[in-house]
Amino acid sequence: MKVNLDRIIKDIETLAAFTSTPGEGVTRSSYSKEDQMAKDYLKNEMEKIGLNVWEDGFSTLFGRREGKNPNAPVIMIGSHYDSVVNGGAFDGTAGTIAALEVLRVFHENNIENEFPIEMIAMNAEEGETFGPSTGVSNSRALVGTLTEKELDTVTNRHGQTKREAMKEYGLIPDLKSAKRDKESIRNFIELHIEQGPVLDNTNTGIGLIEYIPGIGRYKVNFHGEVADSTAPMANRKDALLAASQFITAVNQIIESLGEGITGMVGELDISPNSHQFVPDFVQAKVEVRTFDVDTLQDINLRDQLIVALDDITERTNVETELIEMARIGYSNPTPPSIMLKENVEIMKRICEELHYKYTIINNGTGHDAMMMADFVPTNMIYVPSKDGISHHPDEWTDYEDLEKGINVMLHLVMEICK
Amino acid sequence: MKVNLDRIIKDIETLAAFTSTPGEGVTRSSYSKEDQMAKDYLKNEMEKIGLNVWEDGFSTLFGRREGKNPNAPVIMIGSHYDSVVNGGAFDGTAGTIAALEVLRVFHENNIENEFPIEMIAMNAEEGETFGPSTGVSNSRALVGTLTEKELDTVTNRHGQTKREAMKEYGLIPDLKSAKRDKESIRNFIELHIEQGPVLDNTNTGIGLIEYIPGIGRYKVNFHGEVADSTAPMANRKDALLAASQFITAVNQIIESLGEGITGMVGELDISPNSHQFVPDFVQAKVEVRTFDVDTLQDINLRDQLIVALDDITERTNVETELIEMARIGYSNPTPPSIMLKENVEIMKRICEELHYKYTIINNGTGHDAMMMADFVPTNMIYVPSKDGISHHPDEWTDYEDLEKGINVMLHLVMEICK
Repeated sequence: MKVNLDRIIKDIETLAAFTSTPGEGVTRSSYSKEDQMAKDYLKNEMEKIGLNVWEDGFSTLFGRREGKNPNAPVIMIGSHYDSVVNGGAFDGTAGTIAALEVLRVFHENNIENEFPIEMIAMNAEEGETFGPSTGVSNSRALVGTLTEKELDTVTNRHGQTKREAMKEYGLIPDLKSAKRDKESIRNFIELHIEQGPVLDNTNTGIGLIEYIPGIGRYKVNFHGEVADSTAPMANRKDALLAASQFITAVNQIIESLGEGITGMVGELDISPNSHQFVPDFVQAKVEVRTFDVDTLQDINLRDQLIVALDDITERTNVETELIEMARIGYSNPTPPSIMLKENVEIMKRICEELHYKYTIINNGTGHDAMMMADFVPTNMIYVPSKDGISHHPDEWTDYEDLEKGINVMLHLVMEICK
Repeated sequence: MKVNLDRIIKDIETLAAFTSTPGEGVTRSSYSKEDQMAKDYLKNEMEKIGLNVWEDGFSTLFGRREGKNPNAPVIMIGSHYDSVVNGGAFDGTAGTIAALEVLRVFHENNIENEFPIEMIAMNAEEGETFGPSTGVSNSRALVGTLTEKELDTVTNRHGQTKREAMKEYGLIPDLKSAKRDKESIRNFIELHIEQGPVLDNTNTGIGLIEYIPGIGRYKVNFHGEVADSTAPMANRKDALLAASQFITAVNQIIESLGEGITGMVGELDISPNSHQFVPDFVQAKVEVRTFDVDTLQDINLRDQLIVALDDITERTNVETELIEMARIGYSNPTPPSIMLKENVEIMKRICEELHYKYTIINNGTGHDAMMMADFVPTNMIYVPSKDGISHHPDEWTDYEDLEKGINVMLHLVMEICK
């Protein structure tokens, strides 16, 4: 049993045309006209194969193939179809049409499924539309962590709040009805492009995910005072010297916390960044990743960073300011998202049977699957991104690789739907 | 007794027209056609006022006003008239025509001078033509530290060695004859634009220099290994962590050396400089300034930096590489250049008598006067640079400020030439 590549290509190309920036990549913002056009296309395709189609109280699109046991929890498959501004044709869309194509194969082959299968198509995954801490909205609505407050406080580039934008789109959001019962979902499975170079560089078609590490991000501003290189040492307020001591302190803190956490300062913005002058300003960006829930429960990373910063101010006379880049309503860092191990093992076997090269990738960033993983048993499949490029018009996944990824999903769903 | 502003303006404007980049600032490279045109203009102006004009074995132009005592050591005044590519009309030129104008006033007023006065016009001050460590060539030839080897090893942007470029210019360099006898020079006095913002920002017309701190520059490359933020801490080679430890080490070393030296890392180039990745490469630039000769004799800064770097490599597994940005034939850092104090005091009094605002500026960078200061009693006068801009077509000094600076030089020379 195999998926149909021609249909996959047609889906990708059709959806890529629903963009507000033709010729400059895909721009399909949440609740835009292009969102509606894409949704109409998907609905139509879903109805063609006899799915029961509806939208929930947060405009998430569902299509259900009934199971022999209609009361059993569902196998939910899908992804998002919104995009960043001047993005590509594959981010999100690949996983949405993967679910559609899997259900087409079920339909045309009359494959029996004990458990109902639901396709999910989400339209507000990208944090770009309403700001970096507001992404994965549909999955947050589904698991029940999206707040009414967020709908009224975050705004898009047109200045609309999320609630206003949804209203213009034709929807009065109803978060209560959008929340799903945990017990109603047996599995969540998402295919997504890697958005990184590993699969492409190693010419590996399929990436399997065991867990997505939790993520924490902080910006730290160091406010010093500019001075000539001849300024006396004692009177200096050297922002880069302070930042350097912080970089070392971050390293010591993270190392002291054991193997459950990694992280560093990887990025500095230095002003004026000239060999002749003592820098008056540095912004440092910290990224930490977490691998086990226990480590996270034992630490308060924010407090440890602040203690280090206070000490640095004491020593250098440089004022510091720590800004948490947390998602609204989430801890920073977030806990890791553990994928369902037995399904990873099944997919390994499927790849071997189909003679597909695969590898384990545990370094991904934000996806709806991360929200779902804390809620129900979840799995992800990655397909390659050419040169690791995403969120860009040049984003590309070879169709043969996408076909392989969808075949893996098809065989997994066939196996677990019994 | 005052200088003539109209003549000053005419000199500046005439010389600014000798550029190979009309409309894009002054480009008057050493030994170019424009160099020759400027020199011809200067020679002609010098001959008009009865100076005895000649060029030395390194194409440095001199014009001598004889003194009542022809065997007495000379008061040498002047600067350079070469420029960087797309530079301004004042850097160097201001000081060259200052000397010319002072001698015009002497000539038209029949001022008696006991000591001969020599105007010097140099054509190879900018390091840009033959590389950053090859500037202040005429003064180095004059004091005897320029080597034959340099003439054959450094090249300009056309690929010519200094000797080849000079030959095309019509000169076989003769370093032996260019070297002056220390005892033949009583004073060297140079007027120059500040090339910094202090005088302009404080609306002060005149900058007097007590000493120019010595300068040392190093580039340090840190070669690590790029890794995702999820990479285990133990296996990392974090180039920014290593650079940070170095920044702290530089601070400790400089502070431990007392008040005779200042310095820091003010500039980093980080790759890839992304919060998601462990940086694989950092280049740090160190600048140190020295204020007394004793400190310099007691330390070997290079060795201290290398000890620190070896220790950092040991701790971080990041390979390091120290590159000295020394001038050929000079220590790094160089010793400070101390100006003749009694002349600074005289100039303070002149400024007060003329009701000119002045300030002491001890933070300048490379000038011919630094070479001269180690050789003969030397003084500098700074005039403002609008917004601190130099080496740029927008370089500007208000003519009234330039006039004031030249008046200070005139009165100083009048006083000490007796």
